[in-house]
Amino acid sequence: MAPHKTTSSRVALRASGVDLHVEWTGSGVRAGLTDALREAVRSGRLAPGSRLPASRALAEDLGIARSTVTECYATLIEEGWLTARHGSGTRVAERAQPLRKTPTAAPSPEHHSNHGLGPGAADYADFPRAAWLSAARRAFSAAPHSAFGYGDPLGRMELRTALADYLSRVRGVYADPSRIVVCSGYHHGLSVITRALKAQGTNTVGVESYGLDIYREVLSDEGMITTPIEVDEDGAVTTGLDALPPAAALSLTPAHQFPSGYALTAERRSALLDWARSTGGVLLEDDYDGEFRYDRRPVGALQGLDPDHVVYFGTASKSIAPALRLAWMVVPERLLPAVAHAKGRVDTVSVLDQLIFTEFVTSGALDRHIRSRRHSYRKRREDLADAIAAHPGRAELIGMPAGLQAVVLLPAGSEPRVLRAAAQQGLTVSGLAEFRHPQAAIPGPWGDGLVVNFSAVSDAAWPTALRSLVRVLP
Amino acid sequence: MAPHKTTSSRVALRASGVDLHVEWTGSGVRAGLTDALREAVRSGRLAPGSRLPASRALAEDLGIARSTVTECYATLIEEGWLTARHGSGTRVAERAQPLRKTPTAAPSPEHHSNHGLGPGAADYADFPRAAWLSAARRAFSAAPHSAFGYGDPLGRMELRTALADYLSRVRGVYADPSRIVVCSGYHHGLSVITRALKAQGTNTVGVESYGLDIYREVLSDEGMITTPIEVDEDGAVTTGLDALPPAAALSLTPAHQFPSGYALTAERRSALLDWARSTGGVLLEDDYDGEFRYDRRPVGALQGLDPDHVVYFGTASKSIAPALRLAWMVVPERLLPAVAHAKGRVDTVSVLDQLIFTEFVTSGALDRHIRSRRHSYRKRREDLADAIAAHPGRAELIGMPAGLQAVVLLPAGSEPRVLRAAAQQGLTVSGLAEFRHPQAAIPGPWGDGLVVNFSAVSDAAWPTALRSLVRVLP
Repeated sequence: MAPHKTTSSRVALRASGVDLHVEWTGSGVRAGLTDALREAVRSGRLAPGSRLPASRALAEDLGIARSTVTECYATLIEEGWLTARHGSGTRVAERAQPLRKTPTAAPSPEHHSNHGLGPGAADYADFPRAAWLSAARRAFSAAPHSAFGYGDPLGRMELRTALADYLSRVRGVYADPSRIVVCSGYHHGLSVITRALKAQGTNTVGVESYGLDIYREVLSDEGMITTPIEVDEDGAVTTGLDALPPAAALSLTPAHQFPSGYALTAERRSALLDWARSTGGVLLEDDYDGEFRYDRRPVGALQGLDPDHVVYFGTASKSIAPALRLAWMVVPERLLPAVAHAKGRVDTVSVLDQLIFTEFVTSGALDRHIRSRRHSYRKRREDLADAIAAHPGRAELIGMPAGLQAVVLLPAGSEPRVLRAAAQQGLTVSGLAEFRHPQAAIPGPWGDGLVVNFSAVSDAAWPTALRSLVRVLP
Repeated sequence: MAPHKTTSSRVALRASGVDLHVEWTGSGVRAGLTDALREAVRSGRLAPGSRLPASRALAEDLGIARSTVTECYATLIEEGWLTARHGSGTRVAERAQPLRKTPTAAPSPEHHSNHGLGPGAADYADFPRAAWLSAARRAFSAAPHSAFGYGDPLGRMELRTALADYLSRVRGVYADPSRIVVCSGYHHGLSVITRALKAQGTNTVGVESYGLDIYREVLSDEGMITTPIEVDEDGAVTTGLDALPPAAALSLTPAHQFPSGYALTAERRSALLDWARSTGGVLLEDDYDGEFRYDRRPVGALQGLDPDHVVYFGTASKSIAPALRLAWMVVPERLLPAVAHAKGRVDTVSVLDQLIFTEFVTSGALDRHIRSRRHSYRKRREDLADAIAAHPGRAELIGMPAGLQAVVLLPAGSEPRVLRAAAQQGLTVSGLAEFRHPQAAIPGPWGDGLVVNFSAVSDAAWPTALRSLVRVLP
């Protein structure tokens, strides 16, 4: 904003005893006087019912034109701060309620603990700021004017086409663009699909007995019963599925069970698809970190095997950063109308982010970024494995070499003690118990353990964070 | 992406009669073979149950290592495409269902009519691409790593603080940062507040008898009854409010009634606040275009008069562009917990956009942009007024010189004919009837008319669009 000379004046409002500080900049004396008077009323310094000076008198005191004062009064009358009645002059309106001050809010919590290895403690040092800005520049110069309007409620078709190519290539997903729906994060996508399923008569969702409570909460908030499905080293256990009602849904993390880190085996995949086909059930495949496998190429998505019975979910939260609030689902054709209705006629997803992310995907910047992060995370997981292996009997690393988190099993009963020790060191890390479904069997297949989010710190901070972690092991 | 040499090979799968095209790039022959086989199964060329060549034979045909083939088979077995049983070799899994192709979706509709003056026809030529990129650069270099994680569900505190200053300065809103909630557009904010109000027992929302049907739809989708409240040249009519049940809400556009363009008078403001205070009602103030007043400073927001009974809504959709999907509400303190619950623990609003918009507001870029748009829109409304005045008796412009749209009244009964003439010319424009509440009195206070969104075209296209409009008048 161009700098303006600021002029100020001070005037005592006669009869009301109020000392008015009037300040005006380029926007003029009228605006300055209006603001000063409004503030005096609002703060209660000018009490309801009190009479204001006649416009001529105030104009003289301030050395300004009378018309300026009358216009200012007129604005405040129109806004409802003042009232004017013939013969009684201009007064503060009876209904101009002075403010009760509310305490000023504390700033958003930024996580300042020394070493954060918990899910809420991410230090997104890896956000590709330069590559993102460069994609933004290219996207903005290529975008037609119309791109800056309201987007397609299901997502920009350019992005859905780019995602179809990407998901088919990288995850073996059968992803026709018309079936792809862009969402503001997995949480949003899950709530949309839940509302769509509910409209079709689904009232129960089987959820893995270990997982994130915020997602179970989305399901219950939308009126679903969440039934825990046991998980073991082969992924979700399929023997108890017959207990689910017809048209149930099952929420799964097949590529890398969260948080245990195991992959769903081929036999279980088959059994799940058989269940879905024979009962009219729907599998919700949360492929949150499917791009990250360190020993070999990632196993393809379950959805590719049967696109009519699987809703596939992917996200940019793990591959780039949660700040993007961008995720996508690939929806069976028969669910599309209900999903479109549940998503609404006006979308929540930033069209700017969609334009830029499309460019980020099609230019290969996403592949490059993931390659670089995969390299770094593979190294971290190896470091973690080495550190744990050096202390046999105290701890054991489980799960596949994949993803952004791993579970370190602890001796039975030691989890609370280890978490306390971590907290004392300023190390944020979660216990396995935190992820257990409230109705799941205790102690469950794995007993005590830590869930280590090894992506949550910068490359530079990782060695220190790992040392802190090893120190708190029993 | 670094360019990779692409090598390809072709092999006939013996016994199955399938001609396999194997292509590999930098990612290697194993990936290429895996993709080619998966695609052959998926497309149905390799039928369920058919037997694949022994790994030794296929390796010889392709001139590659046998281990590459066995690894490829292993991956596809793990993914569920193939099965292997001792003694019966590797076969295509029975459950690998071949795809039915769905038609490829049409590209998102971009509005290509010659002149769009309707609400859905915006040509956002005015999006400040350069200023936005420059704010993005500054915001990204200043942001801490933690800013790229999940945001505060109510919005980043930096943005809420910047908005508090802005709204207080520009709209006279009492906006403590702790009461500001950032949303993905007005539509999203309205649905959040509706859920919060419903949780508090509200079941009826009075809506202005003219307004946008998508917002009435949000209210009904969340289970509210929407009762039309008449509007006239003084804004919403307050005489019938006693008919509303206790704890009702009232949705209003006080600064510039949409679409009629009239402002709510001081008397009506007082009456509405009295109603809210005496019945425990809540006023929902949609200040969608409050920054745009052309004859003088905008009248301050209703919320400033009584922050405990008014929910204030503002948006970046009119001041910048809908693509941003960014809006905000200022919420009475007692409603904050319910609003926070309704908004959810994981937010939908792009944190990147929040970071950039904060910089856009605090650097003065928003003020500059609005000043420039105000100048341009004022000119357009004057052009429109002049053009209409040149044809007395055929049409009449109503409402305040403000905002981004204006109503042109037409002779009784001529609205459908004028709309047809406009459509024939490729001119997108809406009729007044489209905005009428289904239960509102017909013909209502204004009868026939057009709602002209004069912001919907570029500066360059405006003169032609205006000429088209004048041509279709009766």
